[in-house]
Amino acid sequence: MPIQHYLQFTDLTADEYAWIFARAAAIKAKFKAYEKYHPLVDRTLAMIFEKASTRTRVSFEAGMYQLGGSVVHLTTGDTQLGRAEPIEDTARVISRMVDLVMIRTYEQEKIERFAAHSRVPVINGLTNEFHPCQILADIFTFLEHRGQGEEGRPDLQRLAGKVVAWVGDGNNMANTWLQAAELLGFTVHLSTPSGYEVDQSVAGVRSSASYRVFKDPHEACRGADLVTTDVWTSMGYEAENEARRQAFADWCVDTGMMALAKPDALFMHCLPAHRGEEVQAEVIDGPQSVVWDEAENRMHVQKALMEYLLLGRVDG
Amino acid sequence: MPIQHYLQFTDLTADEYAWIFARAAAIKAKFKAYEKYHPLVDRTLAMIFEKASTRTRVSFEAGMYQLGGSVVHLTTGDTQLGRAEPIEDTARVISRMVDLVMIRTYEQEKIERFAAHSRVPVINGLTNEFHPCQILADIFTFLEHRGQGEEGRPDLQRLAGKVVAWVGDGNNMANTWLQAAELLGFTVHLSTPSGYEVDQSVAGVRSSASYRVFKDPHEACRGADLVTTDVWTSMGYEAENEARRQAFADWCVDTGMMALAKPDALFMHCLPAHRGEEVQAEVIDGPQSVVWDEAENRMHVQKALMEYLLLGRVDG
Amino acid sequence: MPIQHYLQFTDLTADEYAWIFARAAAIKAKFKAYEKYHPLVDRTLAMIFEKASTRTRVSFEAGMYQLGGSVVHLTTGDTQLGRAEPIEDTARVISRMVDLVMIRTYEQEKIERFAAHSRVPVINGLTNEFHPCQILADIFTFLEHRGQGEEGRPDLQRLAGKVVAWVGDGNNMANTWLQAAELLGFTVHLSTPSGYEVDQSVAGVRSSASYRVFKDPHEACRGADLVTTDVWTSMGYEAENEARRQAFADWCVDTGMMALAKPDALFMHCLPAHRGEEVQAEVIDGPQSVVWDEAENRMHVQKALMEYLLLGRVDG
Repeated sequence: MPIQHYLQFTDLTADEYAWIFARAAAIKAKFKAYEKYHPLVDRTLAMIFEKASTRTRVSFEAGMYQLGGSVVHLTTGDTQLGRAEPIEDTARVISRMVDLVMIRTYEQEKIERFAAHSRVPVINGLTNEFHPCQILADIFTFLEHRGQGEEGRPDLQRLAGKVVAWVGDGNNMANTWLQAAELLGFTVHLSTPSGYEVDQSVAGVRSSASYRVFKDPHEACRGADLVTTDVWTSMGYEAENEARRQAFADWCVDTGMMALAKPDALFMHCLPAHRGEEVQAEVIDGPQSVVWDEAENRMHVQKALMEYLLLGRVDG
Repeated sequence: MPIQHYLQFTDLTADEYAWIFARAAAIKAKFKAYEKYHPLVDRTLAMIFEKASTRTRVSFEAGMYQLGGSVVHLTTGDTQLGRAEPIEDTARVISRMVDLVMIRTYEQEKIERFAAHSRVPVINGLTNEFHPCQILADIFTFLEHRGQGEEGRPDLQRLAGKVVAWVGDGNNMANTWLQAAELLGFTVHLSTPSGYEVDQSVAGVRSSASYRVFKDPHEACRGADLVTTDVWTSMGYEAENEARRQAFADWCVDTGMMALAKPDALFMHCLPAHRGEEVQAEVIDGPQSVVWDEAENRMHVQKALMEYLLLGRVDG
Repeated sequence: MPIQHYLQFTDLTADEYAWIFARAAAIKAKFKAYEKYHPLVDRTLAMIFEKASTRTRVSFEAGMYQLGGSVVHLTTGDTQLGRAEPIEDTARVISRMVDLVMIRTYEQEKIERFAAHSRVPVINGLTNEFHPCQILADIFTFLEHRGQGEEGRPDLQRLAGKVVAWVGDGNNMANTWLQAAELLGFTVHLSTPSGYEVDQSVAGVRSSASYRVFKDPHEACRGADLVTTDVWTSMGYEAENEARRQAFADWCVDTGMMALAKPDALFMHCLPAHRGEEVQAEVIDGPQSVVWDEAENRMHVQKALMEYLLLGRVDG
């Protein structure tokens, strides 16, 4: 049986997502109740960071500890991913000693090569191309607020027909939203500045049925159930900072855009946020914003993901 | 109920200190006996370091593990405290995922802002203004050596009338000694070079009854129960190094100063020490020095502090 | 009783190695069976790295967690080993708070001074002079493949008369092989480029009975049971890189050398490897190579070593 990695959103099926969201809700409830739950005792997660991170770091590391496991945190200086030795060798060695690997790096190709030579599951903690753990958290957060089924459990059916407006950079988040929409049956409204469009070939979506492209970000928000954005300049693109500030000036999520969305629309942002740039303070700090829940949920969904990759469908 | 933080020495009452010192003694005894004591199982401490540290790092991290908890260690590069996002946002996010936060930073104002937006207790692991955990350890060490009450427990009453001589920089340690003296009823003799005086307004002491200022460091040591000092140049002030070497030349704790103190006076130093600068080797390596106990006790008092902040007054 | 450190291979006796190898086999079996085994619960390992590392880091850290213990990972920036304070002071402080210390540094003299002032055992995680943990792993790996006694346990007697060919730099690995050969009764064939010879006085071997020096690396490999090498330029010697590339050109372990060794000879490399430099891809990726087992075994032997240093000869 091949190892189940999580390198792109499409690595799991809708049925598997339904399971993981249900587990995330159960695991979150345990956390809130201080209920001890240690299914991953004696399991070790290696985290390899080529890009710094607060949220990814804390959410994975604290999450693993809460499940009874351990974490080895490696930064580029420690691991020399692909510099001092071929990535394949690093994968062979590390995966002999730990049970799970999370990698935050630049090129998706690096993580694919690592996974191909790993004996243990590999999780994409962010690449230039994809950010599946964040979208996992975002969808869970949406379901928590707008899609609870019976007994308060997240119900993936509630996503049908929903509209997610992506306002801003055609980046890893946008690519991953496209994959999620096609897989789970909702629609993405994409509005990006000229020159920063989403390249649909990266996401590899099979048809254009699950997304629509808008020149005007206001139009993208019209009727949306969720409006979401990201910083104008992601890590690694700082050199383009000034050019991006000019190009993105009209892609600030403001109260005008939110007014065009559904009355109960949510606002999300994967953080860190720059108020006054990609989002108005009134929006991110306003009543429709669920960004803090979204950040916390990174931890809960990733716990469910790690449990699933290591143990499959467990009771508990 | 507001969250109980530990940002300044004055954040706890004398009665709470009595409890914490008693717990520290009990927890230290368990450590020495290899007695398993895991009250903080499933609790996670996030440590945020903007200044490097050996003692603070090891004492908090090892201490948390010994209590059954876990630690996420973040350095500035990881967390970008106040750079990539407002401190308030970082506080909101991190405090959603962990149970306790320790911060070592520069400005006290930063830690105050973090705490104001944190859902969990925040501990000051050193700021430019205060170092309450170190003074907690120093007082515990003093009581251990000179203030044991019945059944060998630390007895805060024994501090009454005692004199602590602070020789050197009017820094965060000096400020914190001032707060402790007023709160716990002992006297501080301050002697600092001209231009490096303590600014009493920082400590916020209500009266001058608990301290005396001396031009001559020898006079400050006369009759002291404890003589203590710090490096001439604390982290962050390296640019002033040469000016400080000249200004502080007469503020080296030597055998002459110790001879003026009480015969059973102790010597303390929060380390690292520079023999031949702020203290003579004969003093720090001599029989009155308790600096290694003092360093070890950082761990024990901080364990008691963490237990108190998270669980209150527990049996065990 | 003096503290048992592990600073050189000669710090343990042949009898102690027999015990440790047997324990390593038992502990490895538990790991493979996901059998919980936590003899080091509540014990803390401090790891001090002055040189970066993947293998040493992951093997010690994951190993300690698997034994139920905890790890505090300190890099030079955190600890200032010998910079901000004398090494002796750092040793005194850290060894008050943890149960075991692993150090990866440059000069052997540094680790010796640390150990002399430590209250707890110190392990050499690599110095310029020695790398005992790697040789421990290498011998265990050899025994696993070629020296299993009754009931599949490693049998040190099987080393008698065996020949290890060391091809390349006369470095810390070569020094440690010399120590191991004299202690455990096998023979090392050394072949190093001119100017990179082993200095036998570093290893401190008492006689020349356990090693032979060869100008021609092919001759060194003739009849060998194990052929092993290392990168041409170890960490810390990068400035000599170009000079070394020229001097070492004939010291690439190739299929010709392996053909001169015994038909069942093994190939080892402590990694990272540079294919086409010190070893041909055909060799390291070929059927005689056991480099991935060797890397994994670092963890298992170090777990046995830590258990022995902290608890002595235990059942379990």
